[in-house]
Amino acid sequence: MSSKKTEKLKIIPLGGLGEIGKNLTVIEYGNDMIVVDCGLAFPDEDMLGIDMVLPDISYLETNREKLRAFVITHGHEDHIGGLPYALDKVNVPVYGTRFTLALIEHKLEEHNMLDIQLNCIDAGDTVTLGCFTIEFIKVSHSIAGAVALAITTPLGVVIHTGDFKVDYTPIDDEPIDINRFAAYGADGVLALMMDSTNAELEGVTPSERELGKTFEKVFSEAEGRVIVASFASNVYRIQQVIDTAVAHGRVVCFQGRSMVNIARIAYELGYLDLPENSVVDIEQLKNYDNSRVCVMTTGSQGESMSGLFRMANANHRLIVGKGDTVIISASAIPGNEVSVGRVINQLFKRGANVIYDRLADVHVSGHARREELKMMFHIIKPRYFIPVHGETRHLYRHARLAEEMGIDPGNIFVLDNGNVLEISGKEAKLGSGVASGSILVDGLGIGDVGTTVLRERRLLSQEGLFSIIIPLAKSSDELIGLPEIITRGFIYLKDSDELINEAKHYAFDLSLQLLEKHPGPDRTAFTAAMKSAMKAFLLSKTKRTPIIVPIVVEIER
Amino acid sequence: MSSKKTEKLKIIPLGGLGEIGKNLTVIEYGNDMIVVDCGLAFPDEDMLGIDMVLPDISYLETNREKLRAFVITHGHEDHIGGLPYALDKVNVPVYGTRFTLALIEHKLEEHNMLDIQLNCIDAGDTVTLGCFTIEFIKVSHSIAGAVALAITTPLGVVIHTGDFKVDYTPIDDEPIDINRFAAYGADGVLALMMDSTNAELEGVTPSERELGKTFEKVFSEAEGRVIVASFASNVYRIQQVIDTAVAHGRVVCFQGRSMVNIARIAYELGYLDLPENSVVDIEQLKNYDNSRVCVMTTGSQGESMSGLFRMANANHRLIVGKGDTVIISASAIPGNEVSVGRVINQLFKRGANVIYDRLADVHVSGHARREELKMMFHIIKPRYFIPVHGETRHLYRHARLAEEMGIDPGNIFVLDNGNVLEISGKEAKLGSGVASGSILVDGLGIGDVGTTVLRERRLLSQEGLFSIIIPLAKSSDELIGLPEIITRGFIYLKDSDELINEAKHYAFDLSLQLLEKHPGPDRTAFTAAMKSAMKAFLLSKTKRTPIIVPIVVEIER
Repeated sequence: MSSKKTEKLKIIPLGGLGEIGKNLTVIEYGNDMIVVDCGLAFPDEDMLGIDMVLPDISYLETNREKLRAFVITHGHEDHIGGLPYALDKVNVPVYGTRFTLALIEHKLEEHNMLDIQLNCIDAGDTVTLGCFTIEFIKVSHSIAGAVALAITTPLGVVIHTGDFKVDYTPIDDEPIDINRFAAYGADGVLALMMDSTNAELEGVTPSERELGKTFEKVFSEAEGRVIVASFASNVYRIQQVIDTAVAHGRVVCFQGRSMVNIARIAYELGYLDLPENSVVDIEQLKNYDNSRVCVMTTGSQGESMSGLFRMANANHRLIVGKGDTVIISASAIPGNEVSVGRVINQLFKRGANVIYDRLADVHVSGHARREELKMMFHIIKPRYFIPVHGETRHLYRHARLAEEMGIDPGNIFVLDNGNVLEISGKEAKLGSGVASGSILVDGLGIGDVGTTVLRERRLLSQEGLFSIIIPLAKSSDELIGLPEIITRGFIYLKDSDELINEAKHYAFDLSLQLLEKHPGPDRTAFTAAMKSAMKAFLLSKTKRTPIIVPIVVEIER
Repeated sequence: MSSKKTEKLKIIPLGGLGEIGKNLTVIEYGNDMIVVDCGLAFPDEDMLGIDMVLPDISYLETNREKLRAFVITHGHEDHIGGLPYALDKVNVPVYGTRFTLALIEHKLEEHNMLDIQLNCIDAGDTVTLGCFTIEFIKVSHSIAGAVALAITTPLGVVIHTGDFKVDYTPIDDEPIDINRFAAYGADGVLALMMDSTNAELEGVTPSERELGKTFEKVFSEAEGRVIVASFASNVYRIQQVIDTAVAHGRVVCFQGRSMVNIARIAYELGYLDLPENSVVDIEQLKNYDNSRVCVMTTGSQGESMSGLFRMANANHRLIVGKGDTVIISASAIPGNEVSVGRVINQLFKRGANVIYDRLADVHVSGHARREELKMMFHIIKPRYFIPVHGETRHLYRHARLAEEMGIDPGNIFVLDNGNVLEISGKEAKLGSGVASGSILVDGLGIGDVGTTVLRERRLLSQEGLFSIIIPLAKSSDELIGLPEIITRGFIYLKDSDELINEAKHYAFDLSLQLLEKHPGPDRTAFTAAMKSAMKAFLLSKTKRTPIIVPIVVEIER
């Protein structure tokens, strides 16, 4: 082992820095490598038509023989969503807690991947992977089965918190295991990677249990149905809704595909406690008075195919109406504010009483705020600190907080994806970077949509397409028909005969001129000139700049 | 006059209800009609390529002879932005305060409209327009020169608050004139229309002056340049920044087109107090140490062409760097959260110290919260209440608050744009509606982009375009060349030879088959069948659904 200590410990984030999403961190020493989490990201609003975003894992493929395992902190999409794609390229064992693995298994089944070795661990367990020994430490988060990792490496202990908050009164009665962090802190911690999501926010994140008070109040005042929208994976939230519903003599009906699926998994694994006869199917609801009904659904982000959206827009067997109370038990993820607002507007329009985050305490975050982060710095006292899981502003605020907590500024590293932090016995510094980036998934295509295609989509989305079809004789430079004009997303055609006719004649005259100037057989210069002249023509007529596509059709005569 | 009293007073919102934007309300009695405000709306994220949204004013055009004037409460875009378009159709006088008119004049000049009669009024003035007598009442808002309207009609007084908040310590030392509202309240008010923007929020909106404390703290701690981004029209905010900068020995440089323009107008009209030598051009900045510089710029919403955005992205003569302090003195308008977040991230990346709403009190709203609204209900005691200026949820929350404040629920009207509220001596009820809606402006086109074009743009933006050009002989049904394939925004072509070749051959075989089934001369059935077969082909190959455009080019042989 001692000879090995001349090696450097490498910490390489391939996703999750400068973004909320696709978390993936490589820990590497000598011939051993483990990966912490393997998530996906949801597309930004400017990634038009993209279904999801994966981390670039070419570094894992190149170093396949070193890779011992994926070690997963919890089952949110930004931590497990990339696994089917990554495991398809590097099939190594996966470690996680029971609930995490159940969600991964469900995902792998959907991808028909049945040959993956899934290793179930519990908080408190320790596993050895190559030169690393990993202890899983219970943390509080907005999903069951979340753990932090204490990774003992040849050079010292690296703690990765995963996503966490400090909840002393959690719904599962198993609080974050502060004592284990403290024990490691007492022995000395080499490096800490900690969740930065709420590093902007003062104070502490309230306990999940606090929401029980709001639910209790709303349920006691509600007369008609109570409909609660929340994240499907937050079984603690679901449990509280069920408990409150049952206490008020209501049955619960699950709606929305992921809500139904995850509730079933959670129930089967014992994470959800469903009192006898408390859950009913949608068909059975007609046997109950509205005052005895609670519906638990997806759609807290205003997603257009979700249960709540369809109930609000009368496109569901359950239609929200007068007398119903709707609780949106979530806050909008940045980018979703407008769609959440629209669903709320629509629910009010249907006559419902809507309870949402501006009106009541209907949501608590799953991430630690500054006072909790400070406690962690205080007890762990790491030599090196790397803020993770956050946009740039979160990372910088977190770094600044670390400094205030006494960590040497020279030992704090705000990294980018693809950076390689090399830690030796003496120091830590950036080595040369590795490949990283965003692989866009669109339909079956993985990585076949990049900046060129996105740029075209953006241009098309702004002003549409204007295409001129010019039939030419192949051998001569003769125009053998009138140019045709095809547009999509450019202008309302029925009212635009005049403009289109004018454009046709302009294209005709232009073709004659340009054919003289740029005779065949090569049509490149001809189409380029046509494009630029038509662009100027349309700009002057409409002040719009559609994508212009001249198409020369050459016919053998 | 008494004979006239058999008429009904009509209140007709043509914009501003169920939305924040394009405020426009008609007040009509007998042969007289006035319009309160004439705004534009900024396009929703699903209005692809649209520049702005105007209210449908066909009702004003139809009733041109009744229309006495546009009466404008203040100079924000959602209250004046539609004027150039509306005045182009119905040229009637415009009334507003000095600052409001200055902004309108600037706008009309840009549209080359020099024949509009602009009538300047002051708070406290009264004007008579047909059967209406209108008193302008000073209110507090985030722009200078904001007034409410007390409109005395033959049936009683209608109060329209415009946008307002209650500020007892405003920067211009002229607080909202509560006494005038109270006087009307004491005499009896028929109907109240009140700003609903903050009807969800408890408590009171803090005074603009409160921000002075934050500015003072930030300026005393700042070592390098201080860069403040804010709305150009908030001269109170700008004044506070200037005062603080000057007190700390800094000169101020205005950047961003609207900031420069509006600051100039405000200064000329005496709304901005600029101590001698306090303002400098960008060229002069090099003469000052960074510790003596303050930059006041646009871009608080992360707009991509704004001053702050360009400074953050090194695309401006001033580039933000280490040592600079940036204050984003605004909160994100719904829909802008992501772009504001990106600018903040970028500023941190450049090494700046960024102060924004999550970290400090850098912004106060210009709209009244619930305690202020309650006071207004209490002193005005209207018979009828119509919440205005808000999305549906704001209107409903405001209506509910009115009910709590003792207004008869039967006298509270949550209206939609185009509704006609008819008030007689005895009662108020909805009459039949009038035309209303959103007119989309795209380039020079006003109203030529509607749902069809937007739908095409949306489809193009998601999966792009796939076009098949099929050259046919006009007289026979002969295929006279290989089909060509043109795509945009569909797939990265350089890596997709195989797919495109396969598609070409498929289109060739398909054409031969379909020409037998659907011979010419009419090609409708042929192209429809081609489209649907290609759609299935591409879906199976890529799981994508681009817009498919088969183009038959018919050649005379």
